[in-house]
Amino acid sequence: MKFTAAATALFLASASAFSPHNAFVNKNMVSTPTSSAMQMAFESKIFETTEVNFADTTETIVKGGRDLFPLLPKAFEGIKQVGVIGWGSQAPAQAQNMMDSLAVAGADIKVSIGLREGSSSFEEAKAVGFSEEDGTLGEMYDIIGKSDLVMLLISDAAQAKLYKEIFAAMKPGATLGLSHGFLLGYLESIGESFPADMDVIAVCPKGMGPSVRRLYEQGKEVNGAGINSSFAVHQDVSGKATDLALGWGVAVGSPFMFETSLRSEYCSDIYGERGILLGAVHGIVESLYRRYQRQGMSKEEAFLQSSESITGNIVKIISTQGIKAVYEGLEGEDKKIFETAYSASYKPAKEILQEIYDEVSSGNEIRTVIMHGDRIDKYPVGKIDGTDTWILGEKVRAERDEDKIPLNPFTAGVYVATMMAQIDVLLEEGHPYSEVVNESVIEAVDSLCPYMHYKGVAFMVDNCSFTAKTGSRKWAPRFDYILDQLAYTAVDNGAAVNEDLIADFESHKVHQAVEECCKLRPSVDISLFAETSTKEIVIE
Amino acid sequence: MKFTAAATALFLASASAFSPHNAFVNKNMVSTPTSSAMQMAFESKIFETTEVNFADTTETIVKGGRDLFPLLPKAFEGIKQVGVIGWGSQAPAQAQNMMDSLAVAGADIKVSIGLREGSSSFEEAKAVGFSEEDGTLGEMYDIIGKSDLVMLLISDAAQAKLYKEIFAAMKPGATLGLSHGFLLGYLESIGESFPADMDVIAVCPKGMGPSVRRLYEQGKEVNGAGINSSFAVHQDVSGKATDLALGWGVAVGSPFMFETSLRSEYCSDIYGERGILLGAVHGIVESLYRRYQRQGMSKEEAFLQSSESITGNIVKIISTQGIKAVYEGLEGEDKKIFETAYSASYKPAKEILQEIYDEVSSGNEIRTVIMHGDRIDKYPVGKIDGTDTWILGEKVRAERDEDKIPLNPFTAGVYVATMMAQIDVLLEEGHPYSEVVNESVIEAVDSLCPYMHYKGVAFMVDNCSFTAKTGSRKWAPRFDYILDQLAYTAVDNGAAVNEDLIADFESHKVHQAVEECCKLRPSVDISLFAETSTKEIVIE
Repeated sequence: MKFTAAATALFLASASAFSPHNAFVNKNMVSTPTSSAMQMAFESKIFETTEVNFADTTETIVKGGRDLFPLLPKAFEGIKQVGVIGWGSQAPAQAQNMMDSLAVAGADIKVSIGLREGSSSFEEAKAVGFSEEDGTLGEMYDIIGKSDLVMLLISDAAQAKLYKEIFAAMKPGATLGLSHGFLLGYLESIGESFPADMDVIAVCPKGMGPSVRRLYEQGKEVNGAGINSSFAVHQDVSGKATDLALGWGVAVGSPFMFETSLRSEYCSDIYGERGILLGAVHGIVESLYRRYQRQGMSKEEAFLQSSESITGNIVKIISTQGIKAVYEGLEGEDKKIFETAYSASYKPAKEILQEIYDEVSSGNEIRTVIMHGDRIDKYPVGKIDGTDTWILGEKVRAERDEDKIPLNPFTAGVYVATMMAQIDVLLEEGHPYSEVVNESVIEAVDSLCPYMHYKGVAFMVDNCSFTAKTGSRKWAPRFDYILDQLAYTAVDNGAAVNEDLIADFESHKVHQAVEECCKLRPSVDISLFAETSTKEIVIE
Repeated sequence: MKFTAAATALFLASASAFSPHNAFVNKNMVSTPTSSAMQMAFESKIFETTEVNFADTTETIVKGGRDLFPLLPKAFEGIKQVGVIGWGSQAPAQAQNMMDSLAVAGADIKVSIGLREGSSSFEEAKAVGFSEEDGTLGEMYDIIGKSDLVMLLISDAAQAKLYKEIFAAMKPGATLGLSHGFLLGYLESIGESFPADMDVIAVCPKGMGPSVRRLYEQGKEVNGAGINSSFAVHQDVSGKATDLALGWGVAVGSPFMFETSLRSEYCSDIYGERGILLGAVHGIVESLYRRYQRQGMSKEEAFLQSSESITGNIVKIISTQGIKAVYEGLEGEDKKIFETAYSASYKPAKEILQEIYDEVSSGNEIRTVIMHGDRIDKYPVGKIDGTDTWILGEKVRAERDEDKIPLNPFTAGVYVATMMAQIDVLLEEGHPYSEVVNESVIEAVDSLCPYMHYKGVAFMVDNCSFTAKTGSRKWAPRFDYILDQLAYTAVDNGAAVNEDLIADFESHKVHQAVEECCKLRPSVDISLFAETSTKEIVIE
C-alpha cells in the first residue's frame, strides 16, 4: 500500500517469480491464474547475498548500509544521469537520498528531477537544492531523454496516461525504474508490454516517501536505519539490471532488499489495501457497529467494541505478540465467542478476498481505477466520513481512555479470521511469506491501524492514494454485506465452531513468519503522528 | 433482465446501432465509450414495417400476429432444421411456440432440441413431444451440426465456456441465433469475435420463458397476445438475416418486434439489473431502513416506510400514472421532502450507475461474472435473506394491509432520483428511449418490484439468474454506502433543494416515452404470482 509507512519491520522475501500471465491476460483473462511461487535465487556480482530462513522457505536477501556506498559507482556503471520523474511521495525522498549517497560514494552521476511543465513542484524541488541552472531540474521529457536511469515516480494514473510518450522519450540503452508494479498491471490489462529493448527494474520501499527520507537521515547516525525495499528485475537486456536495482536500494538507504516480481508486487499491493489493510477493516467495523447496536448496545459502546477494539487493542497484541496471541489471551466463554465468530467469518471473508485477488490479477481492478480516474471531473470523489459511524467515532476518540479499550472477542474473531483469509489467499496464489506477512499483517498492525486509531478509518479512506481510495470504497461495503448476510446470520442461527478451521489457525505456518519479521524490526521508530502525517498520506 | 416478465408493456425501439467498440475493448478498454444512438431504419422484404413516434424520435417496428404465420416459410427460406439448444427458461417456450407456428404455417421445418449428454432435461423435453426417435431431440453438438438455425439458449456461463466447440460444430451457412447479447460481451472482453462467415442474429423476448409460452397459447384465442421481442442483426452474410430474425419473432408469438444491437442489448440489460431493477432497490431499502431507525422509528415502521413504500405504493403510481405523478401527488411539506431527497440522491446514485455502465461496457463486469462462476465450487453462493432486514420484512409482509402502505416522500425522492439517474446514463450513452424505458421503468414497476413486494427483495436476489445475482450482490452495497455517505449526510447537513435538478426532472422527455409505453400495453395480464413463479425465476 503506497501511502503507508509499513516501515517498522524488515521484510525478507523469497524470490517470487510469478509468470507474467500475458497469455492469460490477453486471451483467457476470465480464468483464475493458479500461479505458484518459485524459488528464484538471484545473483549479484557486486553485493553479497544472505540466506534467511523464513517460515518453511529459505529466502535470499541483500543487506544494505552506508558501508556499501563505495560499491555504488560499480553498480551504477554506465549511468551518467539519473532522472527522478515526479514530486509526489516517493520522488523527493528517493531523489535526495540517492543524490546524497552518490555524493558520499564520490560517483560522478547527476541526479535530476523531471516535472510537468508549469508544475507547482518546481519550487519545492528548488527548495531542497535541485536547480534548472545546473541541469538537475527540468521539464520531464527533457530529463527523461537525458537520463540513463529513469525513476518513474509519478502517480499510477499519470503512468497509465503517459507511458507511450515516456517510453518514446527514453534514450537507447536507458533503464526504466519503477517503485510499484501498477504500470505492468495496466499494460497487461490492455495487452501491451514494455519496449523489449530496455531494462525494466523496480525498487519498492515498504514505506511512504517521507519516512524513506527521515530514516535515511537517521541512518547517517545509526547505520542500518532506513526503509526496506522489495526489488524486481522485469527485463534485463544489459545483464546488469540486478546490480543496478540493488545499488538503487542501497542508495536510497534500504537496510534489506528482497526480490519480488513486478506482477507479484502489484497484485499483493493492490489486493492488500482492498483487504485487511483498509477496505476490509472499514467493512468489518461498519457491520459490527450495526450488529452491536441491534443487540442493544449504545452507539458509543458499539463503536468501542468494534472500531476501537480493533485499532486500539487487537492490533497492538498482534504487533507485539503475533496473531495467535489474540486468541490465546482469551479465556472461557470469550475464547468460545472468538471461535464462533472466527468460524463463521473466515469463509465469507475469504470469498470476497478471493474475488478481489481475481479482479486484481485479471486486470479488471486496474481498469476500474483508470475508468474511475476518467470520471472524476464529472463525479469528484466525495468524503465518506460524515456518516453516523464516523461522527460518533470522532466523539469516542475525543473521550478516549487508551487503557480502557476493550478486547471484544467477537470483534477479534471476525478481524483475525479476515486477516487469516487474506493470508491464505495470497499463499494459495503463490506469494512468498515475506510479501504475505507484509501486506497482511505488519503493514496493517504497525502502520495503518495505528493511523486509523488516531484519525478514524473513514479519514484514512478519504486521504489515501486514488488507487487505494477507489478500491476501499469499492470493497468495504462488500465485506460489510457478506459478514452481515452470511457470518453473523450463521452465528445467530447457532452455527457450531468449526474445529478444523480453528486447528488450521493454531498450527498455521504464518505465525512463525510473523515472529521472524518481528525479530527483524529496526530499533528506529517512525512516528505516525507527526504534524506532517496528514499531508503525507494526501501527497501520494 | 432475463429472469423477469417485463411483460405487461410493449416496447418500441428505435434502431440503435452501437458501434461494436472492438478497438476500444481490445486496446483502449479503460476509456469510457461515448457512443450515441443512430437511427437505423431496417428493411424487410417480407414483413410490413410500421413507424411509431416515441418521445422525440421515430422508431421502426414490425407488428407480429398469427395472421402472419403464412409468411414464415418465406422468412425461413433455406432452413430445413431449427436446433434449439438448452432447456432453461427460454428454450422450452420458444421451441414449442416455433414448432406450433411452423406447423400452422405448413412449413416443412424440423424443430429439434439439443441437450448435454446425460442432461436431466431429456425427460422434460420428451414430456412435451420432442423425441430422439424422430430426431427432434438429441445430443447438443449433434443437433447443432444438423441445424440451419441454431438457437443458442443455454446459460450465459455455458455459452462463454462452450462457444468454440459450438461454432466449430455448426455447418457452413447455418445461422447462429441468440436471445441475449451476453456472448458478444464475453467475446469482446477476451478480444474474440463470431466467425465472420456466419449470420448472427438475436431475438430477445422481453419476458421470462414460461410467459413466452403462456401468452403464445393465449394468443391462439386472442390474436396479438404474446411477449414482445427486441431483435438484432449482428452479422448478415446471407442478406437474409433480418427477415429470419423477424420470422423467429413472429413464430414465437411476439406482437411487436423492435430493433436493437447485440451490444446495446447486453449493456442495457446487465446494467439495468444492477441498477434500479434489482441492485439499486436493494441498496436503497437497506440504507433507508437503517436511516429511519436512526431517526427513531421502530423496525416495522422503518421497513414500512422504506421497502413497502417502494414496492407497494411508489411503483404502483409509476405503473399507472408515470414517474412524475409520484411527485405531483405530493403536497406542501411532503413535496419539499421529496425535492430534498431527490436533490441529494440524484448525483450519488448516478455516480454508481455510471460506474456500472462503464464496467459493463468495458467488459469488466462480464469478466467478473465469468470469474465468479469459476469460483462457485469452492464458494457456493450463499443466501442473503437471513439478515435482520429481511426477517423483519417477512413479518411485515405477513401482517400487511395493502391499503395502508404509506407513500414516504423521502423514500420516493431517493427511489425516483435513482430511476431518473439510470435513465439519464442510458440516454447519455446513446440508448434508444424504448430500451431505456424498458430497462429503467416498466420492467421495474410492472414486473420486478411487484415480485419483490410479494416475496421480498432479498428473495429475488437469491433466486435470479447467476449473472443478475452476481451483479446485484456486487452493486447493492455500493448504492447503500454512497447514499448513506453522500446523500443522507447532505440532507442532514441542510443541503438546499437543487431547483435545476427538479426542473430537469419535471420537463424530462422520458415522461412522454413512458406514457407511450403505457398506452401500448396489451390487455392480457401475466400473473406474477402463479404457483410456478418461484421455480421460474430459479430456472433462468
